[in-house]
Parts: sequence; C-alpha cells; structure tokens
Amino acid sequence: MATRRRKKPQTAKIKPKRARNLSPGTVTYTGKKTTTVTELDIIDYSSEHFQRFKTKNIEEAFNYEDSTNITWINVNGLSNTEDIISLGNHFELHPLIQEDIVSTYQRPKIDEYEDYLFIVFKMLHYDDEKLNYEHISLVMGKDYVLTFQEAEGDVFEDLRERLEHGKGRIRNVGADYLMFTILDAVVDNYFTVLEFLSNKVELLEDKLFTDKEDPNITEDIQDLKKEILKIRKAVVPLREVINRLEKIDSTLIEERTNKYIRDLYDHIIQVNESVEIYREMIWGLMDMYMTTISNKMNEVMKVLTIMASIFIPLTFMAGIYGMNFEHMPELHLRYGYYYFWAAMILVFFGLLWYFKRKKWL
Amino acid sequence: MATRRRKKPQTAKIKPKRARNLSPGTVTYTGKKTTTVTELDIIDYSSEHFQRFKTKNIEEAFNYEDSTNITWINVNGLSNTEDIISLGNHFELHPLIQEDIVSTYQRPKIDEYEDYLFIVFKMLHYDDEKLNYEHISLVMGKDYVLTFQEAEGDVFEDLRERLEHGKGRIRNVGADYLMFTILDAVVDNYFTVLEFLSNKVELLEDKLFTDKEDPNITEDIQDLKKEILKIRKAVVPLREVINRLEKIDSTLIEERTNKYIRDLYDHIIQVNESVEIYREMIWGLMDMYMTTISNKMNEVMKVLTIMASIFIPLTFMAGIYGMNFEHMPELHLRYGYYYFWAAMILVFFGLLWYFKRKKWL
Amino acid sequence: MATRRRKKPQTAKIKPKRARNLSPGTVTYTGKKTTTVTELDIIDYSSEHFQRFKTKNIEEAFNYEDSTNITWINVNGLSNTEDIISLGNHFELHPLIQEDIVSTYQRPKIDEYEDYLFIVFKMLHYDDEKLNYEHISLVMGKDYVLTFQEAEGDVFEDLRERLEHGKGRIRNVGADYLMFTILDAVVDNYFTVLEFLSNKVELLEDKLFTDKEDPNITEDIQDLKKEILKIRKAVVPLREVINRLEKIDSTLIEERTNKYIRDLYDHIIQVNESVEIYREMIWGLMDMYMTTISNKMNEVMKVLTIMASIFIPLTFMAGIYGMNFEHMPELHLRYGYYYFWAAMILVFFGLLWYFKRKKWL
Amino acid sequence: MATRRRKKPQTAKIKPKRARNLSPGTVTYTGKKTTTVTELDIIDYSSEHFQRFKTKNIEEAFNYEDSTNITWINVNGLSNTEDIISLGNHFELHPLIQEDIVSTYQRPKIDEYEDYLFIVFKMLHYDDEKLNYEHISLVMGKDYVLTFQEAEGDVFEDLRERLEHGKGRIRNVGADYLMFTILDAVVDNYFTVLEFLSNKVELLEDKLFTDKEDPNITEDIQDLKKEILKIRKAVVPLREVINRLEKIDSTLIEERTNKYIRDLYDHIIQVNESVEIYREMIWGLMDMYMTTISNKMNEVMKVLTIMASIFIPLTFMAGIYGMNFEHMPELHLRYGYYYFWAAMILVFFGLLWYFKRKKWL
Amino acid sequence: MATRRRKKPQTAKIKPKRARNLSPGTVTYTGKKTTTVTELDIIDYSSEHFQRFKTKNIEEAFNYEDSTNITWINVNGLSNTEDIISLGNHFELHPLIQEDIVSTYQRPKIDEYEDYLFIVFKMLHYDDEKLNYEHISLVMGKDYVLTFQEAEGDVFEDLRERLEHGKGRIRNVGADYLMFTILDAVVDNYFTVLEFLSNKVELLEDKLFTDKEDPNITEDIQDLKKEILKIRKAVVPLREVINRLEKIDSTLIEERTNKYIRDLYDHIIQVNESVEIYREMIWGLMDMYMTTISNKMNEVMKVLTIMASIFIPLTFMAGIYGMNFEHMPELHLRYGYYYFWAAMILVFFGLLWYFKRKKWL
Repeated sequence: MATRRRKKPQTAKIKPKRARNLSPGTVTYTGKKTTTVTELDIIDYSSEHFQRFKTKNIEEAFNYEDSTNITWINVNGLSNTEDIISLGNHFELHPLIQEDIVSTYQRPKIDEYEDYLFIVFKMLHYDDEKLNYEHISLVMGKDYVLTFQEAEGDVFEDLRERLEHGKGRIRNVGADYLMFTILDAVVDNYFTVLEFLSNKVELLEDKLFTDKEDPNITEDIQDLKKEILKIRKAVVPLREVINRLEKIDSTLIEERTNKYIRDLYDHIIQVNESVEIYREMIWGLMDMYMTTISNKMNEVMKVLTIMASIFIPLTFMAGIYGMNFEHMPELHLRYGYYYFWAAMILVFFGLLWYFKRKKWL
Repeated sequence: MATRRRKKPQTAKIKPKRARNLSPGTVTYTGKKTTTVTELDIIDYSSEHFQRFKTKNIEEAFNYEDSTNITWINVNGLSNTEDIISLGNHFELHPLIQEDIVSTYQRPKIDEYEDYLFIVFKMLHYDDEKLNYEHISLVMGKDYVLTFQEAEGDVFEDLRERLEHGKGRIRNVGADYLMFTILDAVVDNYFTVLEFLSNKVELLEDKLFTDKEDPNITEDIQDLKKEILKIRKAVVPLREVINRLEKIDSTLIEERTNKYIRDLYDHIIQVNESVEIYREMIWGLMDMYMTTISNKMNEVMKVLTIMASIFIPLTFMAGIYGMNFEHMPELHLRYGYYYFWAAMILVFFGLLWYFKRKKWL
Repeated sequence: MATRRRKKPQTAKIKPKRARNLSPGTVTYTGKKTTTVTELDIIDYSSEHFQRFKTKNIEEAFNYEDSTNITWINVNGLSNTEDIISLGNHFELHPLIQEDIVSTYQRPKIDEYEDYLFIVFKMLHYDDEKLNYEHISLVMGKDYVLTFQEAEGDVFEDLRERLEHGKGRIRNVGADYLMFTILDAVVDNYFTVLEFLSNKVELLEDKLFTDKEDPNITEDIQDLKKEILKIRKAVVPLREVINRLEKIDSTLIEERTNKYIRDLYDHIIQVNESVEIYREMIWGLMDMYMTTISNKMNEVMKVLTIMASIFIPLTFMAGIYGMNFEHMPELHLRYGYYYFWAAMILVFFGLLWYFKRKKWL
Repeated sequence: MATRRRKKPQTAKIKPKRARNLSPGTVTYTGKKTTTVTELDIIDYSSEHFQRFKTKNIEEAFNYEDSTNITWINVNGLSNTEDIISLGNHFELHPLIQEDIVSTYQRPKIDEYEDYLFIVFKMLHYDDEKLNYEHISLVMGKDYVLTFQEAEGDVFEDLRERLEHGKGRIRNVGADYLMFTILDAVVDNYFTVLEFLSNKVELLEDKLFTDKEDPNITEDIQDLKKEILKIRKAVVPLREVINRLEKIDSTLIEERTNKYIRDLYDHIIQVNESVEIYREMIWGLMDMYMTTISNKMNEVMKVLTIMASIFIPLTFMAGIYGMNFEHMPELHLRYGYYYFWAAMILVFFGLLWYFKRKKWL
Repeated sequence: MATRRRKKPQTAKIKPKRARNLSPGTVTYTGKKTTTVTELDIIDYSSEHFQRFKTKNIEEAFNYEDSTNITWINVNGLSNTEDIISLGNHFELHPLIQEDIVSTYQRPKIDEYEDYLFIVFKMLHYDDEKLNYEHISLVMGKDYVLTFQEAEGDVFEDLRERLEHGKGRIRNVGADYLMFTILDAVVDNYFTVLEFLSNKVELLEDKLFTDKEDPNITEDIQDLKKEILKIRKAVVPLREVINRLEKIDSTLIEERTNKYIRDLYDHIIQVNESVEIYREMIWGLMDMYMTTISNKMNEVMKVLTIMASIFIPLTFMAGIYGMNFEHMPELHLRYGYYYFWAAMILVFFGLLWYFKRKKWL
C-alpha cells in the first residue's frame, strides 16, 4: 500500500495587525521578506517626456515632486522602515498610512485624504504551487503615484514598458489614469491566479475519476479550500474598494477616468463571481471524493461476497464427504466422486448466474 | 466490471478579460470561433417598408443610418476586429464599448451613453450535450439597433420573419421595442435551455433509481453542477441589467415600451427562480447517489452475511466429523450420518428463519 | 428482496412563458386542462340584493358592468382564448394582461393600472397524492372583480355561499373587500396544503424509524423536496404581491380594507415561515435516512463478524485433527475427542463473552 | 439487540389561521385547552394603593377602567369566546384583535391602534420533555393592560408579587412600564427554555460519545431539531415586535420607558443569537452521529478482518494435510506434526505483527 | 483498542440575563469569579503629569473626578455589588448601566448617554486549553474612563506602561483616545486568540492526516466548533459597536480620534473575516474526518477481501482431496500431491495478479 507523503500543512495564518503593545501609528514592518535595502524605481513622464531610473537613495525621489510631469515612484522592500518614514514624511503621509504601508497583514482598503488617496491591496502569486500574498500600498496625489511592494515583482513591468514606449493613451492622461492602470494590472493578475487554480481543480477532478489511488486527495482538497479562501480574502474587500473609488467625489479623479473605473468594477465583480463558483466546486469535490470511496468499497465488497458466497458452500460440500462416519453410502458409489463434481459445478454456475442477474458481474 | 469511460472534463473556464498587458480600450477578440469574414445582416423597416439583405461589406451598413426607418444591423463574426472598429467608429461607439464587443468573456452588463444604450448578454445553447455561451452585444440608438454575435445563430431568425411579415405590433414601433423583442428572445432561449437541463436532471434521477450500475454518475452530477453554475453566470447579471433598464430615465425608451420591459423583468426573475430550484435539486442528487450506493452496499453485505453465517457453522460441523480421533463414538453409530444430516438441516432452516425474522430475506 | 416499484418521476417543469416566437401580447393558452367551453359564474350583489347564475355566453356578463352593485364574474376554463379576449376587451384590459391570464406559467405578481388592479396567483391542490398548481388571475375594478381559473374549482364555493346568505360584513363593503376575501381563501388553501404535506412528512419519518425496509424512501424524499419547492414557488412571490398591495396608494382600495390586508400579510408570512421549516425538515430526512442505512449495515456487519469470528477458529481446530499425519499423539488419547470438545466450548464461550463485553450482543 | 422503542412523532403542526371558511374577524377559539370557564385576575394599583382579586364574572372588570390607577386584567382561558367578545367590546377592541386573541396559531406581532397597542407573543414551556407553546395576547391602553392566556400560567406570578410588595420602581410608573415588565418576563422565560434545551443537547452529546448503543439517537436529534425550529418560530418574530415597539411614536409610551425597551431589545437579540448557535450545534450532531457510526463499523470490520485473516490461512494449511493423497511425504515424517505446528505459530504471530504494525491492534 | 478518554463536555452556556424575577435595573452579579474585594487601579495623567496607584477603598476614586487631568479607573472584581453601586452613583451612571456592569452575560453593546458613552465587550483567553470570556464594561466621560473587569487581567498592563513611560501620542490626547487604545488592545487580544485557535486547527488537521487512531477527534472537532461559535458571539456584536462608535455624533469624541476609530473598525472587520474562515475550515474538518474513516475502512476491507479471496478457494481445493470417496483417481496418481501444489500456486499467483491489476496491492 502506498505510504503517505506528509506535506507541510498550509494554514491561512492570522497575524497580529501590529507588533503587540505598540501604540497605534507606530511604523513596524510585519512581513517576512527582509531585503535590507529599499529600492526605488522612479518614472517621470509626460506626453513628450519619459525618464526612468532605479536608485537606492530615497532623497533622489524628492526632486520629482514638483515637476509638472506625472511621477511614479515604486518602492521595493518595506523592511527598512526608516526609508519609508522619510519618504512618507516628505509626501506628508499621515502616520496611520505609514503604519499601514508596512503592516503586511492589513486587509485591502481605501482611505480618502484631502491631498491624496490611499489604497491597500494584495497581489497573489504561486511560488512552488503555494499561493502567497504580496502586500501593496498605493498613494495617488495630484501628479504622482507612489507604490510600495514587499519585494520586486514583475506584474508592473509590462505597464512600465507601455509607459516607456508611449503605447495607448496612458502618456497623455493624469495620475488618476496611472492609478487605474495599476489596479487594472492587479485585477488581471487575479484572473491569472484563478486560471492557475482552475487547472489545479481540473487535475484533482481527473485524479478523483481515475482509479489510481492517492491517499493525499483529502489534503489536496483541503489545500484548495484554503487557497480559495485566501483569494477571497484578497478579492472581496478589493471589490468594495473599487466600488468606493467609483463613487468618490474627489478632484483628484477626472471625469473621463470614471468610465474606466466602472469598467474595472465590472471586472472585479467577475473575479468575485468566479471565486464563488470555484468555491462551490471545490466544496463539492469532497462529496465527490466520498462517493468515489464508497463506490470503491462497494466494488471491494462485491469481490469478497462473490468469492466467499461461491466457495464457502462448495467447501462445506467437500467437508461433508471428508467425514469419517462408518456408514456413508455415497462414498461407496461407483461414480460418487463424479456425481459430486457435477453437483459442485451446478452450484458454481448457479451462483454465478445469480450474481449475474443481480448485475454484480 | 464495467470499464470507466473517461469524458473530457468540462470546467467553467476563467479567461482573462483582455489579452494580458494591453492597454484598456484595445480591441482584441478573445473568442474561439474565428470566422475570418464578418457577415452583416441588415434589416431596414418602417410600418410600410421592409428591406433585408446580407453583405460582407461593412460600408454598406453606413447608408442606413440616416434613413427615417428603423435599421437593425446584425454582425456575425467578431474575429475580424478591423471591421468591428470601422463600424464602431462610424456609429461613434466609445473605445471601451468596442473592446467589450469582442471581449467574449465580458459578463452581462448595461452601459448608458448619451446617444445609445449598450447591453452585453449571453446566449446559451447545447452543442453535443455540452453547454456553450455565445457572447452577444447590443447597441440601441435613436433609430437603429446593432447586434454583434460570434457566429451566425438562429435565435433571431424567427424575429426577422416576424418583422418581415409584419406580424404583431413590432413594425409600428421604435428601436426600443426592437431591443425589447431581442432581449425577449434571449430570455425565451433561457427557458429552452432550462427545459433541456430539466430533461437531463430527470434522466439522471431515473438512472439513480434503477439498479443499473453506472460509474459515471458522479461525473454526470458534477457536469450538471457546472452547467447550472454556467447558466447562473449568464442569468443572474442579466436580471440586474433588465432591472436597470426598467429604471433608466432615457429619451431613447418610450413610455409605452416600459410595460413590456417590466414584463420581461418578471420573466427573467422566473428564470432565476427556476435556476435556483434546479441548483438545489442537482445538489441534492449527490446525497441521493450516496444513499443509493449505501443501499447497494447494504444489500451486498446481507448476501455475504447470509451465505457466510449459514455455511460457516455447517462447515464447522462437517469438520468435526472429519477428525481422525480414535475414539469418536458418533462415527460408529448406525444412523450417525443421517442424524448428522438432520442436525444440518435443522441448523440451516433455523438460520434461515432467523434472517427472515430480521427481514433480511 | 423486495422488487423496486418505479414511480413516474415528478419534476417541477419549466415551461416557456409563451408559445415560442410569438410576439409579446399574443394571447395563447399554455395550460393542459382544455375544456373547450368557457363557463361564467356571475354574482351581483349589494347589501339588499343578491343574484347568481351560471352561463356559457360571454356577452351576458356585459350587462352587469354598469350596475351600482358589486359584480363578481368568475371565468372557468381558459382554453377558449377568444372568449377571454372578448371579455378582456369589454373590460378594457391591456393586451399584456390578457396574455398573462392564459399564460399558466406566469408567476404570481401584481400590476397596477389606472382603473383596475391585476393580480396573478396559484392555487395548490393534491390530486392523487400529486401536487398541482392552478393558475388564477384576478382583476379588481371599481365595482367588479373578475377571476379566471383553468377549471372549476371548489375553493371559492364557500365564499359564494357566504355572499349569498349575507353572513359577515362581506355584503356591505366594496369590491376591494371581495378581492381581500378571495386572496384570504387562497392563503387558507395554502395552510390546508401544508397540513397535508405535514402528514406526508410525518408518515415518511415513521417509515424511517421502523425497521421495515422500503427502497423507495429516497424517491419519496426527493418527491417531497420537489413539492416543497413547488409550494415555495407559489408562496414566496405572493408574499411580495400582498406586501405591495398593502402599500399601494390607489383609490380602488378603501382605508378600512387596509387593516384586513395587513392581517392577510401576517398570514402569508406565517405560511412562508412554515414552508421554510418544512424545507429544513425534509432536507434533514436525507441525513436521517443515511444514518438509518448505516445503522442497519452496522447490524449486518456485526452478525457476520460474530458468526465468522466464532466459527472460523473452531473450524480451524477441527481441521487440525482432520489431518493425516502419522504421528499425532492427541488422536490416540483415550478421551482426546472429549478434551477437544471441552476446548471447543471454552473458545466458543470465550468469544461470546468478548462480544458481550464489546456490547455487540 | 435492543428493540426500538417508538416515540410518538412530534411534528411542528401547521394549523389553519381560523376555522375554515369563516369570514375574517370571526372570533373562534382554535386552541386545545378548553377550560369552560374564563377566569379573571384583576390587579389595580397606584404608588399608594394595591388591590388584587380573582373573579369569573367578566363584568367586574368593567368598574376599573375609569379609575386613575393602573389596572391589569389577566384573562385565563380563551375557549369561552363570548366572554372575550364582551370584554373586547367593552374596551372597544377591533374585531380583528378579538379574533387574534383566540386564534392560538397567530404568530407574534404588534398592531398599533389609536388608543391602545396590541401585542401577540408565545410563552414556551416543557411539559413532560415536550415543548409547548402558550398563546398570549396583550392590550396596553392609557392606564390599563389586558393579558389573555390559554390557561393559568405561573410565569407572571412573581411579577404580581413584585407589584403587591411594591418592590422596584414598578408601582410608581405607568401602564407602559407594566407592559415592559410583562414582556421582560417572557424573554426571561425564553432564557429558561434555552437552558433546558442546552441540557438536552449536552446529554445527547454525552450519549454520542459513550459507547452505549442507542438506536433512538436519530429520533432524539430530529426531535431537538423540531424543538429549536419551534423556539425560533416564537423568538424571531418577537424580535421584530420589540424592534418596532422601540420605534413606535406613540403617546402611550413615555420617554423614560424607552431605555428599558432598548434593553429588552438587547436581550431578545441575545436569545436569537443563542437560538442560532444551538441550531448549528444540533445540526452538527447528525454529522457527529454519522462519524460515530462509521467508527463503530470500522472497529467491527477490523475484528472480522483480523479473525478471518489469521484463521483462514491456518485452516487452509490444516486442510492440506487432511488430504488423502497416497503419496504425501510430509505425513510420514517423524516430527511432521510438530513441524506443522511450528509453521502454524509462525504464521499466526507473523499476521499478528502485521496487524500490529498497521495499528489495528 | 484505545479506551476512550471522556472529557468534560464544554457547552456554550446560556445564562439568564439577570437573576430571575428581579425587577429590571437591579444590580446583581452573575459571574463566577467571586473575589470578595473590589480592587481599583487608578491612573491620573496629563502630558506632564503621571500618577498611578492601587487601592481597595472606593472613595479614593472620587477625588480624581474633578481634576483637569485624564483619569482612568480600572475596577477589578464585580462580585461586591455595593462598591459598584457607590462608584456608579458617584459618576451618576444610570441604574440599567450599573446592572449591565455586573451582568456578565450581557452581550457587547454601546449605549449613548448625554454625559458618557457606555460600552460592553468581552475579553477572550485560553485557560488550560479552555476558552473563557471575561466580561468588561467601559464608561467614557469627558475626562475620565472607567473600566470594570471580573478579575485582574493582564491585557491592559502594557497599555498602562505605555501611559507611564509616555510613549506614543497617548499622553497628549483626551479620554476618547484612551478609550480607543483600550478597545484596540481588546481587538489585538482577539488576534492572539485566533492565532491560538489556528494552531489547534492545524494540530487537529495533522492528527487527521496521520494514521494514528484517536477516537476523540469527533469531540475535538465539536469543541473547536463551540470555541469558534463562542468567539463569534464576542466578535460579531463588537463590530456593530465599533461601527456605531464611528458614526456617533458626540462632543465626547474629538475629530482627530475618528481616524483611529475607522482604523479600529478595519481591524475588527478583519477579525470577523478570519472568524468566518476558521468556521468554514472547522466545519470542513468533519467531512475530512469522514473521508479518513472511510478510507481506513476501505483499506481494512481490502485486506479482508484479499486474504479471504485467496485462501477460501485454496481451502476448498484442499477440502476436495480430503474427501473419502472410494473412487478418486487423482489420489492414486504418483505425483498427485505435487500436481495439487502446482495448481495451488497457480491459483495463488493468479489471484495476486488479479488484485494487482485492480490496484488493490
């Protein structure tokens, strides 16, 4: 029998919202990717102009604030909280925002401030078949967008290229449209993750329907349940965020961007519906597995019953003529042994016919 | 034992809302039916006048816009995006709309613009027992209706005939009423699909209740689950669409059409309720299947238990008198063998009576 | 083993809302009870006056419209659509209403028009243990009430007698109160149907708890599920109807009738709650059945295990002394055979005691 | 095996809201406790004054209406409808109220009238382990409270004593506070009933976890389900009642009483939450029972498997040497028999070790 | 087989909201921790000043009320109701509040009064693996905060230290901020409890996936269910409390504190979502356990079937040649015995091969 491989249990962890017993507003990094350096990826553009460079010096970012161009400052690495604070203070971010930027367990939300919007959301990606969150914060001001990531991701890379090569309408419009394209990339990312999950579900279904036995199926289903719950935890609050974004009455968001945000809202709803459908399907897998097990047991039982029901009576008959009674007339018949075989064969085929009729064979 | 036929797993696929990393508003076809040519089916009518013809030349459609008649332009085939764009630009459709027309994974929705309404919905049909979506978009302007389909369908054919033969009030009223009849045909189509599904559910129930064994039942139930989820994905958002359509305060929709839309809303609610009822019934099938399996196993176990319980003690008795002890008085009795048979028969019928009393026979 | 009786599967059918491909507003009968004649049952009354007669001539109904009395025209039989149309036209009913009157698959609803209210609801009754709908429409004008039924029912008979004998306050008040009493009779009818269902549930529960085996229980539960879903389909929308009726701001409904409608609303809510409770109970029956099956299997297994566990070792022992080894000292012992029996009995009771201690006996 | 005791099935009965085919507003008693006499328990009090007496003469109650004191008239026994009517008419109660007072199947509700409030609710109590409703109606006027019960209960007895001995603030405040204390006693009563239910659930859980077999557990769980549904039917609508009571803008309720009603609302919400929690726990019991059954079957199967797997091969070996072949060299070995035993013991312990390793022993 | 350890059943108890039959507003302690003495922990602070001391003399608390500093009076021990009353009267707390402070079964709520806010909530902690509530009440006035606990807890200890050492902005702001930090500590406490629960769930999952048998798993799952229900009972109403707190329009709460409360609301929603996710996971454990049991039974059955199916036919064959027929030619063959063994081995491996092909081995 197959030995059970024991996978590392993968539980949706609950982490404290901030290091215990710290005063609210204290900026403490709670994630695990401790890249000691903070890397900045700064893009400054207008319809004619495009400049991009990377730096590890926070202060280089300060020059771009006042330019009339749109500036996108992407910060990779949140573990160096001092950098975050100095950047945050430069852009006059509220202490609670600074705290949320490094609190990797903060759920998706949107906060309106007078001069900027603050949005928290989660990027999802599969590392080695394991689903992970990446905590991302976005600050959108009049002519800048700040994004904060735990580690250098590649989801925004295409966006940067689109900016660089001036494709699309992206270069002619304001920071609000940039924010929209970033959120759009995130929702696109959810579709990719769901597609990946969809493949996993299909593979598991195939496993269930083939005869090959796999004692880990229960674990696999449980893991899928956790993954879908994890995805839901990222997606459901983002829907609310985008819904509120659509309704915000802020001078920061131009009229023409609203149509795009409404479109984005359609897409996040679509993600939500898919998540719900996968949830139902994954939950249903357990029932399917149960019937599969029961079906197999049924088959096992039938083999046992057929074997036992056929040979137990025959053995009994053989036992009869193995007795040592002095007076057993059948034993002395000339063709007794052959009569016995005839009876045997009769019983054998009679029982076979019976099981055939019962459709067990 | 029956070998298991393996059907192609049929998963509700999640597809990206647009080709990855394209800027929003980029018109890219995401469907699979790549008919290279775009076919137009143009109907121009008023109460006295009726004209219909098919063409593959997009520009022929442009002549009808200004006529005082109602013009219905039905576009078959979305893969040639250039045609869609040129038609879209002629009718001054927003780039996002042009994108949605060819994004076959767009969920049903309604968008209001100043000069037209834009509605996306799904047609459902069974091809070879497999449920498929067809993505349809509708643009309703002051005196024209545009519909966009992936492939030439036959759902609207009756509608066209009704138009041609002037049956009903359809020829005397505006484009809003034409839009209503198109949506009405779609909801009628859902009823047909549900009827088909209803037959499948009934067939499966019959299968469950008859003794014939079918190892594919689990898969069949799972497939039904997916189909009902797929239908729900098309029907539920359409309900919202029609609800909003009822409430729209647009000059495009005349007062007298509102009554019909309210009627349509009643029908889509009815479809929704039926979908929910089928969902519950399909989910219940799994439970039924489990009890069926358990019942069968019970029967198998009973046969085994009866056979074993009757013949094991008898075999034991035969075994006793097959022993070779020197001093076994019974063996030397004159009628020992016949006494033995008498005891045998007694035990046999005693056990039969016991199982009879237990109602196992 | 009992042979399985196969009942006709009873599925909640989905029917098209109208004959396919007809223009909306086309009056086409969709029911099955095709009584070719339309029968009218006309009651004309005021506090002093009472007149009642039956006729098959539609035109006789036209005389009563202008009388200052309250007129109740009950129409039995909807298959003769011409009669319905001529009556409808006489009372100036909107074409959509005329369509709904004969569309037996129309769900319960209320429509307000300037001169009348239009209400659709369902009567439920058990024919031969099968639950059926009857589609009923009601039009309430200033001093008349029209009701349309598929076949002559007996639910309103008591109401007519109450009218005739002038019992209650019914004769002194307007058409709105008549409408209320009709709806009240319908809700009363739901209570009767639920009582009937309650008896069926109780009978099934009794079946489950008694030992008698019945392979049809799964089907019976499934049928109950369908019936409760059917009832819900009639009751839930009627609740909304009465709720809206309570809130309607129409000159057709007098102030004093409102209190009665509020009372009616209380009752329909009560029906709803009962429906939900029965639903939960019926759903729970499946679980109960599963445990019953499992309990029975447990019992079967125990009998098998006890029989096999006792006699298999004993048979083995007998087998030992049936061997033909030349040198088996026990065989030559004087009391060997008796010692053997002693050992046998010891083992037998030892195992009995073991199973006793395990509480299997 | 234990014989199954069959308890009387205890179904949540649905009763008609009024005797069928009676005109609405007809006062007909629908309960079962037919005490022919109606007993009145009259309390008349102010801060200085207290008078209490019992009577069977309805007219004695009429004297108290005009006194400036607060009068509480408690009516026991609803079967004598004439008494109810004469009392109702004296206090000018609407006919629908009079009907509701004696309609024991009326669900909890509140009706506002100009001069009084009318509240219906349910008292719950266990008689012989069976949960029963008592239908109670309350009319609260400017300086009187009327309560109507089916039979003399003892829930209000403590309240009367508190009134008599002038404990608490109860004697100094108006009829609205008296109504509040009565409702408060009812909610307290629900807590008691839930505590009783809680004990039953705990007992059943203990039964499930002990090995003692009890074939009635399924029934017990089903009965608990019905009880909790019954409680919910009383509690859920009362929450709405108290919620509406809190929001009523009536001169009958003084400002200072509002705080107490809000408190009462907190408590009824707490009852509701507990009901929901018990519901989930009771529903979970069925699952627990299933696993218990399956665990037991597992154990039974193991015993069978171990016994059969050990002795069947041994019996086979003994069978070999019981054969009568002429040439079987082993039979003639000097220590053949002992070698055989050695092999036997080897196989025996080998299998034991195998089952040990599998952790079945 | 393992004997079942019986743990004390741990039921979510429903307790009466107040000692029965007491008038509302009566201050009666309902908890179990009867520390006869009431201990006060008084902190008086402003930005420059900090004073802290403990006392058992209630009257010492009265001096601080009028100081311009912020005063936090924490009361440990609620069993001495006289102390509570005298303190309550000094701060002019409404009798209902005084009752709620000592009613340990009061659910979380918020009450607004003119001069203070009153909040009830629950602290959760694990004592010996058992989850317990601690009932805490908070009164927030213009420049004081009162907290009432059943026993001296340590959750607020860190808060006091933060106050003492002047860390954070806590010393410069008003009583409303102090209230916020207390509530914040409570929500932090919920995160800790959930983390603990998360570990228990993970441990149980590991147990389920390892082969080691543990008959207590059903109980463990049931206990987890109760714990999560208990947590939910504390957390869900607190969400409403904080939601209402956010919306309160009171002069007691300063503008700048609102941002912090909104932050707190985010966190309590996060707790809620985690609770729901754990609930689903715990509920799913039962299904997992069922499949585990069924899988094990499947394995047991296979061993039995393989053993029986192989040796029963072989035993039958041996039985044949153990018969005593006079004329059995095979017995007299020279190599009959060896032929027999050959046949035996053939059957043996044939069956092995059969089971191998069926993937049972």
